[in-house]
Amino acid sequence: MGSALVFPMSSNGVKLRIVGTPFDREVIDECIRSGRNSKISRPFPAGISFHQFEDWKDVVPGSDFVVGGISSYGAEWFLEEVLAYLPSDIPVITVVKGLRVAEDGALSTWPQYWEKRLADKGIQRKIYMLGGPGIAQDIIDGEHTVTTISGDDTEVLQMMKDCLETDSLHVSRTHDVTGLQYAVAIKNAYALGPAIAIGLGRREGAARPTGVNAQAAVFFQAAREMRRILRTVGAESDCISMGLADLFVTVEGGRTRSLGILLGEGLSMAEAKERLKGVTLESISAVKSLYEGIAVLAKKGVVTANGKVDMAEFPLIEHLYEVLFHDKDADFPWKRFSFDLA
Amino acid sequence: MGSALVFPMSSNGVKLRIVGTPFDREVIDECIRSGRNSKISRPFPAGISFHQFEDWKDVVPGSDFVVGGISSYGAEWFLEEVLAYLPSDIPVITVVKGLRVAEDGALSTWPQYWEKRLADKGIQRKIYMLGGPGIAQDIIDGEHTVTTISGDDTEVLQMMKDCLETDSLHVSRTHDVTGLQYAVAIKNAYALGPAIAIGLGRREGAARPTGVNAQAAVFFQAAREMRRILRTVGAESDCISMGLADLFVTVEGGRTRSLGILLGEGLSMAEAKERLKGVTLESISAVKSLYEGIAVLAKKGVVTANGKVDMAEFPLIEHLYEVLFHDKDADFPWKRFSFDLA
Repeated sequence: MGSALVFPMSSNGVKLRIVGTPFDREVIDECIRSGRNSKISRPFPAGISFHQFEDWKDVVPGSDFVVGGISSYGAEWFLEEVLAYLPSDIPVITVVKGLRVAEDGALSTWPQYWEKRLADKGIQRKIYMLGGPGIAQDIIDGEHTVTTISGDDTEVLQMMKDCLETDSLHVSRTHDVTGLQYAVAIKNAYALGPAIAIGLGRREGAARPTGVNAQAAVFFQAAREMRRILRTVGAESDCISMGLADLFVTVEGGRTRSLGILLGEGLSMAEAKERLKGVTLESISAVKSLYEGIAVLAKKGVVTANGKVDMAEFPLIEHLYEVLFHDKDADFPWKRFSFDLA
Repeated sequence: MGSALVFPMSSNGVKLRIVGTPFDREVIDECIRSGRNSKISRPFPAGISFHQFEDWKDVVPGSDFVVGGISSYGAEWFLEEVLAYLPSDIPVITVVKGLRVAEDGALSTWPQYWEKRLADKGIQRKIYMLGGPGIAQDIIDGEHTVTTISGDDTEVLQMMKDCLETDSLHVSRTHDVTGLQYAVAIKNAYALGPAIAIGLGRREGAARPTGVNAQAAVFFQAAREMRRILRTVGAESDCISMGLADLFVTVEGGRTRSLGILLGEGLSMAEAKERLKGVTLESISAVKSLYEGIAVLAKKGVVTANGKVDMAEFPLIEHLYEVLFHDKDADFPWKRFSFDLA
């Protein structure tokens, strides 16, 4: 996604410098050599410079802002090696997804965790976030895409929007920081559900086909659980709708879909992971954190704006957790995807 | 959908009598002759009797309930020819979708309208409703499907659920009568949106492809407008989630999808209708009623639980209305599918 955002920003005349992480050494070498990253379908626009990680402190100062285009697997590293040293006047906007569970079971988004850890070091920084229903390749191809940027400072959001907005990338701004962070984090977990339903119908000797109804049944339960979580953290309705559209796009295409289909077809988690080797699967850690975080809240009897947190209201995330981490068969507890005179 | 529900009910041992409308004369003749309706993929289960319309008053009395399996195009007829004469102790559950606008611009669902018109005739009847994310053919095929039945009387709902529920049809009960009625009615209008996005990408010489991002962008706006309408009529969260899953399934497959794709590809409404001749297109009247109903509320300055009704908050339904009824090109006002620090 970090690479994808280069395309709209470059078309707006933004001067861009791409800095790799220590894990991107070969990618950056390739970029310097050929102006392209072979993971994406077309060369980078002209006028962009590429830099290995060790040069970042020479390259970044003076920038208007930094786009932290990392996955949750690089989140701890980004905190310790970049955020802890970055000049405090340079805002950071991230696309990181996923959640984190603290030792005491408390759930947080990565930006929330970063802000807390930085505060412990005496650094006051508010993280900006970009998220919404968009597959990176489609953004690169200039397809119409809606996305949202969140943060506290209206002026900074406007500066970022001015750099990102094009005739095909439609950028909303919001101060609903927590809402957007949770919306983009949890949809990766829940998108596994409808994708598994697709796979179930492809099993050899499947008892019944799965067309669209089964996918929609899981989509219904995913939407219910997502709404419940998002309202619990205080998300506002626009970010909830963004999250549901993000669920839609993630079911329609992307890496989480591929994993879900394989699990639905009957592969074990180990087999599915082997098949998707080398692919970043945000959904795995998202399911784990979300399940564990909710389980702790339920065990503690925490009461939120939604009432008492009750694990019985989260049958889908519970099932996904058991499939991913306890080798349970992927077929669903369908009867629990309903309500009765609630 | 009426024919589809025969399959789960028959598997539960429910004794079923299928009565046609005057428009179904040939279909019923075929059923009597061969035990099948050629519009659906398999013969009806054994033990079902079929009847022409004029026999309904002999066949229906003594039934536990009537399933009114009609489209919105038969709704006025159903009121005048059936509901007005049906014994008052036989409950009616309908699958009718769509909305109606009264001469004064007031929006209502068909069941709401029926109840009012019956009351004018001195008949007190509450209509039950079945709705949710399910394509009829998938229900016939025994695919996992979630659906909801709504009504005031808990016992009657339980009787209906006992007849419908199978190991693949998962039935929720709710007293949120208005919420369910609106959820199933408005999704047909909104599902046109993402389907048009698919068609746009298939236009010859399309400026850009449309993969999933454009569909998701329209899904986002559809979800926002649906939530706004559903909250305005007081729908509860489970029925809102049902409606969004129903939006998902209607985009994924079905007649509304076919119409949307043709419009997106650049066909005029007249050309698209000609291409889909003989297909019931609920979405057309749904768009008209919804747009006109909201426009009247906005013009009157009506204030709801959501604040003042403002046409500016419904750019998608406004656009769909212009495409369907004023031959506007189907490409979207994309920039309006966003929000700013709301």
